[in-house]
Amino acid sequence: MRLVTLEDVHAAAAAIAPHVVHTPLLSFDSGLWIKPESLQPVGAFKLRGAVNALSRIPSEDRARGVVAYSSGNHAQAVAYAAKTLGMPAAIVVPENTPQLKIDATRAHGAEVFVVGITERESRAYELVEERKATLIPPFDHPDVIAGQGTIGLEICADLPDVATVLVPVSGGGLVSGVAAAVKSLRPNVRVIGVEPELAGDTTASFAAGELVRWDAHDRARTVADGLRAEPSELTWAHIRQYVDDVVTVSEDEIREAVRQIARRTRIVSETSGAVAVAAYLNRELPAGPAVAVVSGGNIEPEQLASILG
Amino acid sequence: MRLVTLEDVHAAAAAIAPHVVHTPLLSFDSGLWIKPESLQPVGAFKLRGAVNALSRIPSEDRARGVVAYSSGNHAQAVAYAAKTLGMPAAIVVPENTPQLKIDATRAHGAEVFVVGITERESRAYELVEERKATLIPPFDHPDVIAGQGTIGLEICADLPDVATVLVPVSGGGLVSGVAAAVKSLRPNVRVIGVEPELAGDTTASFAAGELVRWDAHDRARTVADGLRAEPSELTWAHIRQYVDDVVTVSEDEIREAVRQIARRTRIVSETSGAVAVAAYLNRELPAGPAVAVVSGGNIEPEQLASILG
Repeated sequence: MRLVTLEDVHAAAAAIAPHVVHTPLLSFDSGLWIKPESLQPVGAFKLRGAVNALSRIPSEDRARGVVAYSSGNHAQAVAYAAKTLGMPAAIVVPENTPQLKIDATRAHGAEVFVVGITERESRAYELVEERKATLIPPFDHPDVIAGQGTIGLEICADLPDVATVLVPVSGGGLVSGVAAAVKSLRPNVRVIGVEPELAGDTTASFAAGELVRWDAHDRARTVADGLRAEPSELTWAHIRQYVDDVVTVSEDEIREAVRQIARRTRIVSETSGAVAVAAYLNRELPAGPAVAVVSGGNIEPEQLASILG
Repeated sequence: MRLVTLEDVHAAAAAIAPHVVHTPLLSFDSGLWIKPESLQPVGAFKLRGAVNALSRIPSEDRARGVVAYSSGNHAQAVAYAAKTLGMPAAIVVPENTPQLKIDATRAHGAEVFVVGITERESRAYELVEERKATLIPPFDHPDVIAGQGTIGLEICADLPDVATVLVPVSGGGLVSGVAAAVKSLRPNVRVIGVEPELAGDTTASFAAGELVRWDAHDRARTVADGLRAEPSELTWAHIRQYVDDVVTVSEDEIREAVRQIARRTRIVSETSGAVAVAAYLNRELPAGPAVAVVSGGNIEPEQLASILG
């Protein structure tokens, strides 16, 4: 299986530069910097992968548009990328998606199809067939992984003495790209994946040395609604090759991390976005400066108020 | 009276670059970008002026340290800048200062003196006298104004077609520096100061064409605790020369702006930091892309929860 290379990530960086924010590193405390991907126009790192994937669609296919299925941030990212690059977009979302994310996706000009949670893939493939459109998967694609990897390039450039990079894990697109970039540039930097205990399938896979599958209902127990997916064969191959460790955090640790991020760096993070900081606050890490990727900030104001209050 | 020049601001930019964040412009909606100075290490733009002022202290005076008096963000900024540049700092704060800000100032290694609200200037001057230290005023100093002006340079560089810049006004250091930089580079850009109606002394001065003084008790009515100061002769001279207009916003408009900033840009802003966005949402502005400076993000989590909930 061909893995994403440093050259792929450099090419992605050039392609997406006009459309994404080069996020600054923000001081959390003396040992940790956060990389606030919540500052992207759609509020999440997903924009990087989406813009890169769309920018590589051949010009003759662009008018037929793109299709995506997603529980939220990927939907907004594809919708925004399509608007930015002048392509039509159809987005299929499950009916339990937060209204904030559905509204934001529509606001970017995409057609939104709300379907039962088990039907989203099949409906997306129907749309691809009907329209001869291009499917943009949330993580299971080399162009998406390469786009997310640009975060790793920025971390290495902006903090040359980084020792550890902490990255949320769900489907694994983010950690695959970041780890491929960071380990290719700096083999001695430790890249550690973080997931909720209640969706700890990748931690289990890492311990077993092979892909372990958890039931979707089990993975859905965590408050971190963006971390309920599971790796594909492609992202698992990157994780095995490039990631040094995968650890889990509790639901209480996740909520406390949202609170600490708001207080110490004045950043709004969603629960899924805060797990890497939760790991820093609660797990033993290697010595030296650490960076935690705060992957997104799309949280309902009422939920944030209840966590802060 | 000598006003701060574009050359002063360029020199400040070079001096402070290693120590401050070049804050990104974040999309609020199709007409507005925000400049999130809440992302500075101390959570406010004040770091720029403090680092610039401290960096210009002659080397033979540095060991005797610096003194500042402030209701909050300036205190933290001077404490952080002193730690960064290796100087001792003594900070005098009034007894009504939020505990979050006092704790943060101490955490940066400064000595903190909590005094009655009317004694802070006199206590600061005593400390200067005793220690032969250098006083760093919150806004009434050309080096401080030049440091804040670097925000204007960044806006002009990052958004070449900017039409309007909205800036919170209290003592006027921020708006003086930003306006001096922006109007020197781009005379056609409109620079508009924003203050709470309940502390609208600069709006009154602007209308009268001369410095109008409001009683400190009147200015203290606004929830925006960072906007209760009044301009000095020096900042007023910059405002007259460079600022196109000054407008006011209501207390409800300020709270709603905090909510919208969190929701649309995933940024935590303090009430004082949100007034420029409140003006964008509620006042008629010239056509073309606008930038609102979000000047700080140091808000107690409970206050933020109550505004969001």
